[in-house]
Amino acid sequence: MSSGVWFPTLGLVIWLCCLGPTQGGKILVVPVDGSHWLSMKILVKELVHRGHEILVLVPETSMLIHGSEKYKTEIYPVPYTKDEQEQKFNKIKEGVFLKEPGITDLFQSVQRFVEFTTILMEGCERLLNNQSLMTRLRGEGFDLLLTDPFLPCGSILAHTFSIPAVFFLRGLPCNLHLRGNRCPSPVSYVPVFSSQNSDLMTFPQRFKNMLMSFLQSFMCKILYAHFDDLVSRKFGDITTYKDLISYGAIWLIRYDFVFEWPRPLLPNMVFVGGINCAKKAPLPADLEEFVDGSGDDGFIVFTLGSMVSNMPEEMAKHFFDAFRQIPQRVLWRYTGVPPNDAPKNVRLMKWLPQNDVLAHPKAKVFITHGGTHGVYEGICNAKWMLQLFADQIENAHRMVVRGIAEKLSVHDVTTEKILDALNKLIQDQSYKEKIVELSQIHLDRPMEPLDLAVFWTEFVIKHKGAAHLRVAAHDLNWIQYHSLDVIGFLLIIVLTVLWVMIKCCLFCTRKCFSKGSSKRK
Amino acid sequence: MSSGVWFPTLGLVIWLCCLGPTQGGKILVVPVDGSHWLSMKILVKELVHRGHEILVLVPETSMLIHGSEKYKTEIYPVPYTKDEQEQKFNKIKEGVFLKEPGITDLFQSVQRFVEFTTILMEGCERLLNNQSLMTRLRGEGFDLLLTDPFLPCGSILAHTFSIPAVFFLRGLPCNLHLRGNRCPSPVSYVPVFSSQNSDLMTFPQRFKNMLMSFLQSFMCKILYAHFDDLVSRKFGDITTYKDLISYGAIWLIRYDFVFEWPRPLLPNMVFVGGINCAKKAPLPADLEEFVDGSGDDGFIVFTLGSMVSNMPEEMAKHFFDAFRQIPQRVLWRYTGVPPNDAPKNVRLMKWLPQNDVLAHPKAKVFITHGGTHGVYEGICNAKWMLQLFADQIENAHRMVVRGIAEKLSVHDVTTEKILDALNKLIQDQSYKEKIVELSQIHLDRPMEPLDLAVFWTEFVIKHKGAAHLRVAAHDLNWIQYHSLDVIGFLLIIVLTVLWVMIKCCLFCTRKCFSKGSSKRK
Repeated sequence: MSSGVWFPTLGLVIWLCCLGPTQGGKILVVPVDGSHWLSMKILVKELVHRGHEILVLVPETSMLIHGSEKYKTEIYPVPYTKDEQEQKFNKIKEGVFLKEPGITDLFQSVQRFVEFTTILMEGCERLLNNQSLMTRLRGEGFDLLLTDPFLPCGSILAHTFSIPAVFFLRGLPCNLHLRGNRCPSPVSYVPVFSSQNSDLMTFPQRFKNMLMSFLQSFMCKILYAHFDDLVSRKFGDITTYKDLISYGAIWLIRYDFVFEWPRPLLPNMVFVGGINCAKKAPLPADLEEFVDGSGDDGFIVFTLGSMVSNMPEEMAKHFFDAFRQIPQRVLWRYTGVPPNDAPKNVRLMKWLPQNDVLAHPKAKVFITHGGTHGVYEGICNAKWMLQLFADQIENAHRMVVRGIAEKLSVHDVTTEKILDALNKLIQDQSYKEKIVELSQIHLDRPMEPLDLAVFWTEFVIKHKGAAHLRVAAHDLNWIQYHSLDVIGFLLIIVLTVLWVMIKCCLFCTRKCFSKGSSKRK
Repeated sequence: MSSGVWFPTLGLVIWLCCLGPTQGGKILVVPVDGSHWLSMKILVKELVHRGHEILVLVPETSMLIHGSEKYKTEIYPVPYTKDEQEQKFNKIKEGVFLKEPGITDLFQSVQRFVEFTTILMEGCERLLNNQSLMTRLRGEGFDLLLTDPFLPCGSILAHTFSIPAVFFLRGLPCNLHLRGNRCPSPVSYVPVFSSQNSDLMTFPQRFKNMLMSFLQSFMCKILYAHFDDLVSRKFGDITTYKDLISYGAIWLIRYDFVFEWPRPLLPNMVFVGGINCAKKAPLPADLEEFVDGSGDDGFIVFTLGSMVSNMPEEMAKHFFDAFRQIPQRVLWRYTGVPPNDAPKNVRLMKWLPQNDVLAHPKAKVFITHGGTHGVYEGICNAKWMLQLFADQIENAHRMVVRGIAEKLSVHDVTTEKILDALNKLIQDQSYKEKIVELSQIHLDRPMEPLDLAVFWTEFVIKHKGAAHLRVAAHDLNWIQYHSLDVIGFLLIIVLTVLWVMIKCCLFCTRKCFSKGSSKRK
């Protein structure tokens, strides 16, 4: 073989064998409805585009997960109606506008979460007990299960079918995603979610952080009790949901450190923060005309996330009154009844192409409830924000600390406060400077989040998992993980040695004394 | 502005502003001589290729760092001769062949390391005191300093010139790179380097791991005492080398989890294991002819790293005798005197294009001392190994556990043992299967290590650091980091509450008793 010929040949063998374009894999997707689905859908569509065959499991009461030409869907029956589901969900939505959250409301929130997920869990259980569907799914021979572990259905299916799971999420209540993946989180500089601490804490803040960390451990048990129950009924050897999700091969987490506080990670955590910002489309002609007509003053984008498009009438009135007094135009996703004298600079819409609108150079300020999808779209489009927070206190606080937002509690809205905040945001250049800096850092990345998510999903298909990235901490119990048995054993040795030494000393001293006294005698 | 026009315009602005091709930066490189330089040189050359202006600081006694047309070099005088430096280095090299390492030899190794780095430190100090050169370098206005923190010169210069530092390394003795960057390493599943533990440990192994971790902390103080001394003399407010390297913006670490045990990471750690495997060239014609002529039996590659090309004559004889009895040809980097009856299937060479030779499909087994450069070249070319270990016990152990190598101590070499190991490696298919699997996983990565290293170097130039990836642990002292003050305070509260409760109970009991007794009276 002549020199130089075998290099490409060897390369070709390795390429064909493993590194070449992935043979289309068969992927089962178990999504979570609502805003969770909106970003997962981007990944699902891209996977279809790259030649994978996808089946999405959809509960018959689904709100945002619809069929598509691009991927197959399997609609499964659930033991509740769409109305019942919406009632539960509305209870959560309305709850956030009711009154300032206090310590008792924390438990109410927990209760609402448990109530809401309990009904979804009934659907999940109905799915798992649907023998004919289960047999059909098993027969399909899926290579991978892509799921959002906010609900346990996907993880249970992956374990039942013995296929690797890729998780797609921002995080789980009480940080179960970190606990489940055994990721260390030193309480001294990793602020507990919703503690409103930053990563630089004073002694009282660190004290609060530790107490909240204990509280979270306790809350975890309440929040996931019904998950644990289902898991232990399904698999005798796995008794908690935390242990079940520890089998996740890759965690695609919508994190970016321009927004999150830097913290320890594990090798199987892949960060895809900003994935929802990936693709932009031109605006519809009428919308383009409206925003373009805003002139030098520009316009304001106002949305409260994909699931909330309404607010109490009294609160809305404050906003209408404030918007009447500013030169900017306002694009507002609002499905409530507008007042008769609604100002002309306000365009109300039932749905808004948020990311496309924010990308418009004339967009000035983004009024948002502070959900992470919106926050990342704000950052990637370099739009500073007014965070109208209710349930997303932590995100609001974080953006204010970064100097790219003002916050306003929904329980504390007045026309004056809205005007003050908007004027401050529009006139003070520091917000613009900081968001541009953050946006540049966010966008300057070795690889686009969507490509990264696709890469690791395909990696798990090709290599049937990612075992080499899984830490051995999963094989240790709590005592072993914290080396308490080793420390205990060391203490016993040290104490024994000390005891023997003291005994020897005492013995010698006694001997000396008895000799001395016998001599004296 | 018509619809669709402003999207590319906005994109162009952001691209030009920050994400476009980096304006050539000015980079000061402070390398470490020997094998450390060989992989850093690959990055340096690529940075030049991408338009950066580079100045490499070279001590006049340099062994492997030579001038180049591609980058500028500045040769600085040192207060020792090349002979003196080589003497120290030879002492280390010869030490590894002398006898089996024991516990006293551990301290001898430490002593040898301190002696060797002490002489290099004198060179470093001469450089730092070279006022005219320092003034000139400061005047150059470098954007970034690229260094290997094995020696402190680079970090000191970066801090002196107030420019961000990018570190390029595999690791530092006693894990100072992890300690300095405040990366958590739970001893329960992260094996201490040279403990010969894997990440799955029994109780005795975890016990040993903890003891070795204590020993390492102690060793750190001895190993880096002279570094600490220099640092504290240079900067009054930074008193240890560990604190100085905590300012590193990005750590480019030659890690890959096919070889390393999975462990916690930090956001500013970037893994570029296998970077030295990046580029392959065709073999020189005579070498190509020799290896091509090996037929179906193939050939063996035998090197002991870039710095060791010799061994005791007695040991070499065992190898010659073993090679005489095998059908494979052998390419051996050996500068010792060959015996008169040297077998004809052995070609001795003073230098070997190791990576290019290993890429040859007829290469069967790689006999290596187990340095990471060689190990990664073995993995990326899917060549299983015979690890002839001396100082690299840990690497040898790791590859054996992975099932892709046999190990043989240099203190225990016989012709039979060499033959047994080679026959086992060549005949048993499991080595091949495992190395192919590992190699495929290693090569299946979202981005080439060299591109990743270039990206993060350019990122630090563009954004003047990577502050958003630096954990706040750096701002905490040891007590705060481990929350010992918070735990202490909590204990005081708990004990006080308990004490008050006990006092109250006693008081009440006493009251009750006194009432009872007064009634009885």
